[in-house]
Amino acid sequence: MNEMVTKDDGKTGDAGASAMWGGRFSAGPAEIMARINASIGFDKRLYRQDIAGSRAHCRMLMDTGIIPRADGEAILTGLDQVLQEIEDGRFVFKTALEDIHMNVEARLREIIGPAAGRLHTARSRNDQVATDLRLWTRDAIDGLDGALQGLQRALITQAEAHADAVMPGFTHLQAAQPVTLGHHLLAYVEMVGRDRGRLRDARARLNESPLGAAALAGTGFPIDRHATAAALGFDRPMANSLDAVSDRDFAVEVLAALSLCAVHLSRLAEELVIWTSAPFGFVRLSDRFSTGSSIMPQKRNPDAAELVRAKTGRVVGHLTGLLMVMKGLPLAYSKDMQEDKEPLFEAVDTLALGIAAMTGMIGDLTVHRDRLAAAAGAGFSTATDIADWLVRALGMPFRDAHHVTGAIVKLAEARGVGLEDLSLEDLRTVEPRITEDLRLDAAGSAAGRASVGGTAPDRVRAACAEARTRFLAEDGP
Amino acid sequence: MNEMVTKDDGKTGDAGASAMWGGRFSAGPAEIMARINASIGFDKRLYRQDIAGSRAHCRMLMDTGIIPRADGEAILTGLDQVLQEIEDGRFVFKTALEDIHMNVEARLREIIGPAAGRLHTARSRNDQVATDLRLWTRDAIDGLDGALQGLQRALITQAEAHADAVMPGFTHLQAAQPVTLGHHLLAYVEMVGRDRGRLRDARARLNESPLGAAALAGTGFPIDRHATAAALGFDRPMANSLDAVSDRDFAVEVLAALSLCAVHLSRLAEELVIWTSAPFGFVRLSDRFSTGSSIMPQKRNPDAAELVRAKTGRVVGHLTGLLMVMKGLPLAYSKDMQEDKEPLFEAVDTLALGIAAMTGMIGDLTVHRDRLAAAAGAGFSTATDIADWLVRALGMPFRDAHHVTGAIVKLAEARGVGLEDLSLEDLRTVEPRITEDLRLDAAGSAAGRASVGGTAPDRVRAACAEARTRFLAEDGP
Amino acid sequence: MNEMVTKDDGKTGDAGASAMWGGRFSAGPAEIMARINASIGFDKRLYRQDIAGSRAHCRMLMDTGIIPRADGEAILTGLDQVLQEIEDGRFVFKTALEDIHMNVEARLREIIGPAAGRLHTARSRNDQVATDLRLWTRDAIDGLDGALQGLQRALITQAEAHADAVMPGFTHLQAAQPVTLGHHLLAYVEMVGRDRGRLRDARARLNESPLGAAALAGTGFPIDRHATAAALGFDRPMANSLDAVSDRDFAVEVLAALSLCAVHLSRLAEELVIWTSAPFGFVRLSDRFSTGSSIMPQKRNPDAAELVRAKTGRVVGHLTGLLMVMKGLPLAYSKDMQEDKEPLFEAVDTLALGIAAMTGMIGDLTVHRDRLAAAAGAGFSTATDIADWLVRALGMPFRDAHHVTGAIVKLAEARGVGLEDLSLEDLRTVEPRITEDLRLDAAGSAAGRASVGGTAPDRVRAACAEARTRFLAEDGP
Amino acid sequence: MNEMVTKDDGKTGDAGASAMWGGRFSAGPAEIMARINASIGFDKRLYRQDIAGSRAHCRMLMDTGIIPRADGEAILTGLDQVLQEIEDGRFVFKTALEDIHMNVEARLREIIGPAAGRLHTARSRNDQVATDLRLWTRDAIDGLDGALQGLQRALITQAEAHADAVMPGFTHLQAAQPVTLGHHLLAYVEMVGRDRGRLRDARARLNESPLGAAALAGTGFPIDRHATAAALGFDRPMANSLDAVSDRDFAVEVLAALSLCAVHLSRLAEELVIWTSAPFGFVRLSDRFSTGSSIMPQKRNPDAAELVRAKTGRVVGHLTGLLMVMKGLPLAYSKDMQEDKEPLFEAVDTLALGIAAMTGMIGDLTVHRDRLAAAAGAGFSTATDIADWLVRALGMPFRDAHHVTGAIVKLAEARGVGLEDLSLEDLRTVEPRITEDLRLDAAGSAAGRASVGGTAPDRVRAACAEARTRFLAEDGP
Repeated sequence: MNEMVTKDDGKTGDAGASAMWGGRFSAGPAEIMARINASIGFDKRLYRQDIAGSRAHCRMLMDTGIIPRADGEAILTGLDQVLQEIEDGRFVFKTALEDIHMNVEARLREIIGPAAGRLHTARSRNDQVATDLRLWTRDAIDGLDGALQGLQRALITQAEAHADAVMPGFTHLQAAQPVTLGHHLLAYVEMVGRDRGRLRDARARLNESPLGAAALAGTGFPIDRHATAAALGFDRPMANSLDAVSDRDFAVEVLAALSLCAVHLSRLAEELVIWTSAPFGFVRLSDRFSTGSSIMPQKRNPDAAELVRAKTGRVVGHLTGLLMVMKGLPLAYSKDMQEDKEPLFEAVDTLALGIAAMTGMIGDLTVHRDRLAAAAGAGFSTATDIADWLVRALGMPFRDAHHVTGAIVKLAEARGVGLEDLSLEDLRTVEPRITEDLRLDAAGSAAGRASVGGTAPDRVRAACAEARTRFLAEDGP
Repeated sequence: MNEMVTKDDGKTGDAGASAMWGGRFSAGPAEIMARINASIGFDKRLYRQDIAGSRAHCRMLMDTGIIPRADGEAILTGLDQVLQEIEDGRFVFKTALEDIHMNVEARLREIIGPAAGRLHTARSRNDQVATDLRLWTRDAIDGLDGALQGLQRALITQAEAHADAVMPGFTHLQAAQPVTLGHHLLAYVEMVGRDRGRLRDARARLNESPLGAAALAGTGFPIDRHATAAALGFDRPMANSLDAVSDRDFAVEVLAALSLCAVHLSRLAEELVIWTSAPFGFVRLSDRFSTGSSIMPQKRNPDAAELVRAKTGRVVGHLTGLLMVMKGLPLAYSKDMQEDKEPLFEAVDTLALGIAAMTGMIGDLTVHRDRLAAAAGAGFSTATDIADWLVRALGMPFRDAHHVTGAIVKLAEARGVGLEDLSLEDLRTVEPRITEDLRLDAAGSAAGRASVGGTAPDRVRAACAEARTRFLAEDGP
Repeated sequence: MNEMVTKDDGKTGDAGASAMWGGRFSAGPAEIMARINASIGFDKRLYRQDIAGSRAHCRMLMDTGIIPRADGEAILTGLDQVLQEIEDGRFVFKTALEDIHMNVEARLREIIGPAAGRLHTARSRNDQVATDLRLWTRDAIDGLDGALQGLQRALITQAEAHADAVMPGFTHLQAAQPVTLGHHLLAYVEMVGRDRGRLRDARARLNESPLGAAALAGTGFPIDRHATAAALGFDRPMANSLDAVSDRDFAVEVLAALSLCAVHLSRLAEELVIWTSAPFGFVRLSDRFSTGSSIMPQKRNPDAAELVRAKTGRVVGHLTGLLMVMKGLPLAYSKDMQEDKEPLFEAVDTLALGIAAMTGMIGDLTVHRDRLAAAAGAGFSTATDIADWLVRALGMPFRDAHHVTGAIVKLAEARGVGLEDLSLEDLRTVEPRITEDLRLDAAGSAAGRASVGGTAPDRVRAACAEARTRFLAEDGP
Repeated sequence: MNEMVTKDDGKTGDAGASAMWGGRFSAGPAEIMARINASIGFDKRLYRQDIAGSRAHCRMLMDTGIIPRADGEAILTGLDQVLQEIEDGRFVFKTALEDIHMNVEARLREIIGPAAGRLHTARSRNDQVATDLRLWTRDAIDGLDGALQGLQRALITQAEAHADAVMPGFTHLQAAQPVTLGHHLLAYVEMVGRDRGRLRDARARLNESPLGAAALAGTGFPIDRHATAAALGFDRPMANSLDAVSDRDFAVEVLAALSLCAVHLSRLAEELVIWTSAPFGFVRLSDRFSTGSSIMPQKRNPDAAELVRAKTGRVVGHLTGLLMVMKGLPLAYSKDMQEDKEPLFEAVDTLALGIAAMTGMIGDLTVHRDRLAAAAGAGFSTATDIADWLVRALGMPFRDAHHVTGAIVKLAEARGVGLEDLSLEDLRTVEPRITEDLRLDAAGSAAGRASVGGTAPDRVRAACAEARTRFLAEDGP
């Protein structure tokens, strides 16, 4: 076995780890320091943002006369080449250069010579990395917003198809009142709508430029922070240079928004797992999102749903971890903050994958409407309808209505039948004033709950239409 | 010792716990169930919101003709009396009645008789508790916003007083470049400003009415959800009744905002702890926010700052906990959600106390400007100014400027003096073109960093004025 | 409403909070400091441990001649009186005295006069509180161990009763292979056994005495730390005085053990919620641990199970919070550590309650063996048995056996019957060598899995007996 | 830019992510499912354990006659070849084969043909992965134990060298009493000792064999679970097959132990950051573990210490995440559990690196004993010694002794001198009975605290010797 394998991503391979363990330390100090200190293994992912930031900074330096125009032009051309090399996969990232900033700058110097040294005027890696990460996060939010919109589209489409598919509405996983599947799915459309709202708010809040804060105190060069901010699509420069380099609020805020979004996905995933269990049998996942067994051809494990549910832990763990990193850090920059990127990157990747999987599962979902309907009628789930009818039609006080309803349910229970199986005569033995207006089947129950936001199929259809307007009309931020 | 002490708050006293432990179970099933199930120990705190919600619901029932006007008037009068009894401390909360809703309703029935039973028409405890908690959270946000504004005021006031108090600007807790204390404090004004923004966004997002969702499916009564929403100051009814009763996003979102706010407080608290240590000696906390020792009269422990720092753990723990509670819960209401209140209440209380303590500490702070100034000049902290000057005044490329600066620093180091102690002649031995324009004292360095958001005292004073406009003009939401 | 209500437990009432909010600060600095600083609201719970520690310390001071014997006797008598007053509920705790240590000492002084002042010789609140909390935690562990043993007893008793109750063994909540309910319940006996093991290890590790570390550096008095350690049941004095006052590992370790225990309870609770849902209908919770509905008499909500499941969040949140508090704290004592008690107390209370509720639910559980059996046979869950039989009886390679099994399952599926409904002739159309030895009913499948730790009823009965020996023989630690 | 880059490790590259975002879904369902489902990207790390487990299983199958000996020999030879190919880097891992188990088995089949199909007899991937991960965790614990022992060695060596280096003992980061640096460092030796103890306990608890549990219910084959357990170094087979495949306690327990260990490292790292700050200047990190600045040659940023401190967040985050994954999972295996590996692997790697970095920093540490000594004497840190002397030598009650001490401190403060600068005459103006036995310098103070576990240099030297015996004698578990 080859000793001391260091993988591309800078992580320790097993051989390296076992060498490091055991007190033998064949990994000497230099290697330990390189491993703990270098960030290029993960921050190379910021290359596009880093180069975009450098281009904006360079133009500003030219326009303000801080650097000669010719040098600036050379820098811009050189940066284009660096970008192309990275995107072509021809760029060689070097751990010895520690991070993306130094890797890009070093290559720029190779390409254009000493003029490259002017790029870092009135700038520091501290404001540079803050700028890069804000730009990346902004892009990530935009991407996630589109993905979440796609999930809403899949949910609304299924909701429209099943606006009148009656099923049990659960509380405590016990059937409480009939609802429709469309109504149920629209609840998730609302949750995802709030997720998008939180990401949108986070985007607006982070969209300020740290560039020009330099190391931490600002600079004596006559820079134009408004110009660089505008060039990079930021709304304004950040107001305080110390804050600009020491703030990672935006990463925490996005991780918090993603954690809540992951919780929403996990709730839906939990339902899919339960609904696909044999005793429920409400829905069927497509082959594409379940795994089978060569030996049990009927088996269809909801692996994708379980993984979506499980990955919530990872995202919340990253939120917890970053809050812990930032807690108690004095101003301004501390190296601890280098631990901001991997959790953020991984949480975004995890959510992007989870959303895609959930969108696929929902889009592909086969609904067993008969199983839904059968379950909807079971368990005296329309008992509330009796009580409501007594109050509404007979003006009976709620408490008395409850009493009468209890007697009717007991009657059905004693006979071993459902409420809808009782005849009008049966009902009148308990309360003589009951008329045939009182409908006790699940579909009738659902249709009756027509209040705003309620489960009546017409309401659900209208809600679908509104949801299309509210959430699908625009093309994201 | 009296056996089986149950404290007011429903928590188990030691005796009870030890009885419950050990497998002897002198606490029988009934008591165990009461303890785990009843929420009145903590949800009584929602009494004002609960009664306000009931009043709005009652008026709507009257106005829509769902209940007789006379009954409605009796209910309203009775609710007023219940409110008064609670606020007077005369109300007896009963664990047997489980929660605030039943306690209020039972007392209402005692006061006005059977008409009380009409209040719960077209309503359920599920939408009722969701309404109560949203109203409470909205109030809490408003209170916290005012408190955070108070903290900003204290910070800005100190920043104005010390806009030109030069101190070391730290990176890695190593002096990097001189900044001013005013500039440093304004960084926290920005953080708190974002905290307020997050709470404001959360407020806007939660300000929708769940009332009328009933148990989960809506209702067949001709209720007017827009009317109750408006009466309670909500912007609109929630769009989906299942979502209305199963959503606790707002609690999680507020806990996330509070967690980040707590992290900000902890960063400032950490600085206070370090700054009040003897080797730093930058500031002095007032007697009111420190504790002494009868034996060491000079000792002044920064207890309040340490507690503010520590309490971050509690708030983040509650965020983690609630995310965990919600993860994987199927729709609609599950009893698990009862675990939403205590973390939220305690996090709000903790933050309110932490903000008050921090506001007091900042307001009372004595600044040792001489110690700040002395530290600002130490450690060659103006080395960057040399490099910048060489680039700016002599057009030297950045890399060459760095080289020259290194030589100058080595010269000072060899002589055992600070950079500002070198004469012009000394400097010219390294680079003959240096002129007396090059200022190397800490104050000069700070004054020179006059870019937007920079640390120059004039910039700081202007930033203070802007901060007053941005943050203190209005009186909160 | 009365302004500034401070409740017994030292928490801020709503009125207080709203006064504190809004920047009006009717709560002045003194009150804010008292609220954030005083711990008597929660550490009074340590009174027994505190007095026990003081008694041991006092005896040692007498025995070593550090204090006069007469004074020591007075102190011991006085401490007895203080203990009695507290246990009788006659003791008045004072917030102005901050904590339990000062409350006890001040009362002691009232009772016995100046001699009380000798008790604190060669001691500090730092080693005192560390001692108290270790003693309390040790007691809590012992209590929890007994409670967990009680839960194991309940589980084993049910497992014995249902050692042969065949049910579906789930993977992915899909029926995979038949198991018995007894076997399933014994899995939880193992989990709880490990929980007890972790607590036992934590107990052994924490059982060292911090007493005598004094403030942090030890003392010049000729104390006998071995004597106080022995008197308090500790195994030995802690080896390092700085560690003794700054260590809270034991609190974190117990919180971690409780978190994992809570996860186990939540897994069982989740199963109870699913198993009591109508489509599963495997078991029925007793009335004592479920809540009903006046209107739906058949409804039986598994509230206790849901709350046990949910409270996991709280315990894990406290673990996360305390880790965050301790992270990055320099030695030795910092006030931050005062935040150790409430999470620990509350987690222990929460677990004690959760274990009691779960023990009650399991003890009371009604098992619907017919529903279990019916579900066990559904879903071709004995397909693996066919494959295993083909390998075992016919020496067929596993892969070929899988192929044949798939064909048989398809045959049953095409006929719309279960595997056990296929005749020997049917089976032989696919593979002629099959004999009547091949049993395909669920009970036969379970009975056949007789490997060590397997689900065969005889194995389960033997495992129950072993579990009684391993876990119930002794009476706790 | 090349579209849809999938990196080796199975993570989504940026291009892939952006394609997945935005609702365009160029990543079709098959790719989404492959990405979320396949584990080979990380579980290939288990190859050695997987092959070891297969070898033990194969031998047992041969010895029990379940498979023909010739087939078994072929399997063993084939597995050796697979192992060699992987270690030589010649093995091609395939995502289509999902995980390490299938990758190994498929290659085995290529090498030895159909006989490979017999290996999986009486086994399932469920017990296989549980076995692999336990074996890996056991190896990781052994590695970490050695590394932690190495850290103890480095700490003890420095403690020996500085057993008499007097420094301030801090509480609240305020000088409280003089201690020695050796004493301070030994506190960490104790912490690390407990960390090792926790890992040792976790190792003992996890060291049971899941092999033979098969899918979840055991098997009908006459396997010998004791034999496989013994062959793999396990103490015994796990008692319950359902538990065997659904238990991940060991991963959580190790993550909890690592979290606490990370907290210890972060406490020491925090001290290094503070101690290397200019105002403290207690110690100097070697060039190898700090980073400098080309422009500020005197600057020495404690990057490695900051990163060790920060990485605590990541480890605790993984603990939180895995607890969240497991919470509420029904038995037996759910796909959620696949999320156990990456957090565990990453936490182990992070700790291994953090321990190595800390060991290096401590080993290389330069101590500025003069700075320590100067700080030790400042701040009247020997005031307690006066009080103790008055009690001890004059029999004065503690309270009176405090009063006298306060007067002496005020005297020194008024004169602007330290306590050790007061003459015997000065002291006698406050209390005439004071004799020259009263030593007030920091070194004398430390030397006097000679109680067990105290800071007196002789005690510290003895403690170092004991620590060598307790912790360094053996060579790990």
